[in-house]
Amino acid sequence: MASPEVPENSPESNAFVEIFALEPKGSGPLDGLVFAAKDLIDVEGRRTSCGNPSWRDTHPVAAANAVCVDQLLFAGARCIGKTITDELAFGLNGENFFYGTPLNPRAPERVPGGSSSGSASAVACGRVDFALGTDTGGSVRVPASNCGIFGLRPSHGIVSVAGVNPLAPSFDTVGVLARSSAVLNKAASVLLACEVPRSIEVGTVHLLEEAFSSSDPEVDQALREPVELIERTFPGKLRETSLKELGEEASRRGLAGWYDTYCQLQWAEIWSCLGSWVTETRPRFGPRTAANFDLVKNFDRQHTVDAIRRREIYYRSLKRFLGPNDLICIPTTPTLAPIKGTLGVDRTQGDYYPRTLAMTAIAGIGRLPQVTLPVASVGGVPIGLSLLAAQGMDAFLLAAARMISRHPEHDTNA
Amino acid sequence: MASPEVPENSPESNAFVEIFALEPKGSGPLDGLVFAAKDLIDVEGRRTSCGNPSWRDTHPVAAANAVCVDQLLFAGARCIGKTITDELAFGLNGENFFYGTPLNPRAPERVPGGSSSGSASAVACGRVDFALGTDTGGSVRVPASNCGIFGLRPSHGIVSVAGVNPLAPSFDTVGVLARSSAVLNKAASVLLACEVPRSIEVGTVHLLEEAFSSSDPEVDQALREPVELIERTFPGKLRETSLKELGEEASRRGLAGWYDTYCQLQWAEIWSCLGSWVTETRPRFGPRTAANFDLVKNFDRQHTVDAIRRREIYYRSLKRFLGPNDLICIPTTPTLAPIKGTLGVDRTQGDYYPRTLAMTAIAGIGRLPQVTLPVASVGGVPIGLSLLAAQGMDAFLLAAARMISRHPEHDTNA
Repeated sequence: MASPEVPENSPESNAFVEIFALEPKGSGPLDGLVFAAKDLIDVEGRRTSCGNPSWRDTHPVAAANAVCVDQLLFAGARCIGKTITDELAFGLNGENFFYGTPLNPRAPERVPGGSSSGSASAVACGRVDFALGTDTGGSVRVPASNCGIFGLRPSHGIVSVAGVNPLAPSFDTVGVLARSSAVLNKAASVLLACEVPRSIEVGTVHLLEEAFSSSDPEVDQALREPVELIERTFPGKLRETSLKELGEEASRRGLAGWYDTYCQLQWAEIWSCLGSWVTETRPRFGPRTAANFDLVKNFDRQHTVDAIRRREIYYRSLKRFLGPNDLICIPTTPTLAPIKGTLGVDRTQGDYYPRTLAMTAIAGIGRLPQVTLPVASVGGVPIGLSLLAAQGMDAFLLAAARMISRHPEHDTNA
Repeated sequence: MASPEVPENSPESNAFVEIFALEPKGSGPLDGLVFAAKDLIDVEGRRTSCGNPSWRDTHPVAAANAVCVDQLLFAGARCIGKTITDELAFGLNGENFFYGTPLNPRAPERVPGGSSSGSASAVACGRVDFALGTDTGGSVRVPASNCGIFGLRPSHGIVSVAGVNPLAPSFDTVGVLARSSAVLNKAASVLLACEVPRSIEVGTVHLLEEAFSSSDPEVDQALREPVELIERTFPGKLRETSLKELGEEASRRGLAGWYDTYCQLQWAEIWSCLGSWVTETRPRFGPRTAANFDLVKNFDRQHTVDAIRRREIYYRSLKRFLGPNDLICIPTTPTLAPIKGTLGVDRTQGDYYPRTLAMTAIAGIGRLPQVTLPVASVGGVPIGLSLLAAQGMDAFLLAAARMISRHPEHDTNA
C-alpha cells in the first residue's frame, strides 16, 4: 500500500464530535487497536446526536452500546470518540452545517464525503486505526474513496444495527473504514464473526461497462492501472460485462434505473422512520438537510410500490447472474470528491447525487458487500476502485481485497 | 381447508386497540380485502402504542404510514384498525396487562399467543381478511398456530420494516396472518413484490427429527396425519432428517443451542434498541414485561459476541444444507397454547419460552421464511405445522403451502 501523506494525529481534522477513552472489555484480535464510532451509533452513557443538535436534545442518553461497538470492545479494541456525520446520515457530502466539515487530508479543498465523514477523516488523518461508519446509499464507500482509505459495506443484514439510528432500513448497514486492508479485515472479521480466508479462487471479475463509461474520463483513466493490477492478481479472470446481461428489466434504463429504484424506496423509508420526529419536533436543520427532508416529505409514495417491485427484480437478476466466487468491479464514485461548498441545496440539483447514487445503488439494491480500495488518484486527489461480491460472501470479498492490496506491483499503481 | 367455527365479526374478540376506516389508495390484487395492522406498525395520523401506554404517551403521532401499510393500501386493501400487541412486541403470550387478552376463538380458555395477538384474533374471529404482524422470535407464527390460522414470517430483510418499531433488528420481520392460503398468498405477494408460482417442483421435505421428538406427545401425534398429507402432496419427497446433518457445531446441544444463540443476541439487541427509552422514561410496564426488561438490562453482554459467532455458523450450516427447492417441516410450537394466566412472570420461569423459542429460532437464525399451516388440533385446540424454505425462497414456500392446503384430502386431516 502506498502510504498517504497525512498529518499525524492532526488536531485540525475536525473529525470528532466528542473525544473520550472507552477501554476494551476483553482481549482478542483487536488488541492494541484504536477506533472511533460515527455519531449515529450509540455509546453507553452518551447522547447520540446523529449530526443534529435538535436530535441530541430530544433523545435520551444511550443506556447501552450498540451491539457493534460491544463486539469491537470485547475483541480488544479501544474507542476514543464519536465522529461527525451528515445530519441523520442523510447525505454523501460531509459538510455539516452545525459541526463543520471534517478534513479530507489528501485533498483539503474538497469534501471528505459523507455521511461517515468524521470516521473517514479520523482514519485518513491517522487519529484512529479504524472507524465504524454506516452505509445506506454510500455513506462508508464514498468518504473512504474521497479520503483515500479502505471502506467496507457488508452484506445487508449481517452486522447488527441494534443501537444504530435507522435511516432507510431496507438499505442500512454498519461498515468499517481503515487505512490498510489488514486492519480493515481484522475489524470486519469481528463484526461479521467470520474468518477471512488466506487465499481464494476467484471465478470471474466482471468489469461493469456502464459504471466505467458513465464515470468522468479522468476517473476512468485513473482506474485503468488499478484494473490491470486486478488482472495481475487474478490472471485471466477479468471480463467486460454489460448491465444488459442482467436482463431487460434490470438494464432498460441503464444505471439511472438503479438510481430511481433506490431513491424511491429510500425516500419513503426515511419519511416513515424519521417523519414523525421531524413533524413533532420541528428540528433546526442546516439548509441542505431542510431541503432534502422537504423532498422526502412531499414524495409521492405511490412510486414506492413500483420501486419495491423493481428492487426485487434487480436483486434477483444480480443473484442469478453473480456466481458465489465472482466479483464485480466498478469505480466507487463516478467523479472526484466535489470542491467544498459547490453542491446544490437539495440532492436533485446538479448531477452529483444522481450519478453517485447510481453507482452505489448496485450494492444497496443487491444486498451485496462492497469494498473500496484506495488505489488511484487524479492530481493527488484520491479515487477508489470497488469490488462487490455475492450476498453473504463478505469474507471472500475481503480476502480478494487483501490479495490485491498485497500484490507486489501494487505500490507502483497507487 | 376446514372452516374453523368462529364467531363472525365478534365484538368480543378484544383484538383491536383502535378501529377506524382507512380507504385504499389504489386498486390491485387486494381490492375488496380488509386488513388490520399490529399496533407496532405506524399508521399516518395516529399514535403507535406498541402495546404500552407509556410508549404511546412519549412518542409523536405517526407522520407517515409504515411502508408495508402503504403497499397494501396501494394494492386495493382497506385498513380497519390497529391490533393489540404484547408490550413492545416482547412476548409470545398475548396477555397484555393494559389492553387485555385478545380472544382465541378456537380455544377461548387459552392465550391467543403473541406478540401479534390482536392480529391473530382479528383474523381468526373473521373481523378482517388478513392482518399485518411482526415476527422477531415467533410473534406471527405462534399466535397463528394457537388461533388456527395461516401465518407467514418472510425471509429476513425482504419486507420493509420502515415505520415499524424495532425490537431486535437482526431478527425483526413483518409478516402476515390469514384464514386461507389464497388470501395469505395475495397479501404476501404484494409485500414481497413477487408472484407465487402455480406449481413447483419440491426437492426434499426434511422432517426435522429433533423438532418432533422435543414436542409434547399430543402435538407429535396430532401432526402425523398432516405430515402424511404433505407426503401425498409431494410424493416420495419426505425424509427424516436430524440436526446432526448440519454438522457438529450446529447440533452439539440440539435445539437448545439454537435457543441460547437466539436469546443471547436478541436480549442484547433489545436493550440496545429500547434501553435508553426505558431508562429515561421509567415506563409503566405490566409485571411480566417489567421482569423481562430486567432480564435484558442485566444480561451479561459478553455472551453476545459468542452468540453472534454461533449464529453465523448455524446460519451457514443451514445455507449449505438446504437446497433451493427443499423444505423443512417442524411443529410450529412444541406445545398447545397455554391456558390463560399460567405462564411465569419472566421468560426463564418454566419451560414454555425455552422450548417454544428453540423451535422458532430456526427461521430466525437461518433468516429463512416460514409458513404455519392450521392443519391439526388436539381436542379442538389448534396446533400448526410449519414449513420453512431457503432464504429468499418465499414465493416457492407460499406455493408449497397452497398446494398442501388445496390437496383434496386436506379437509379430512384438519
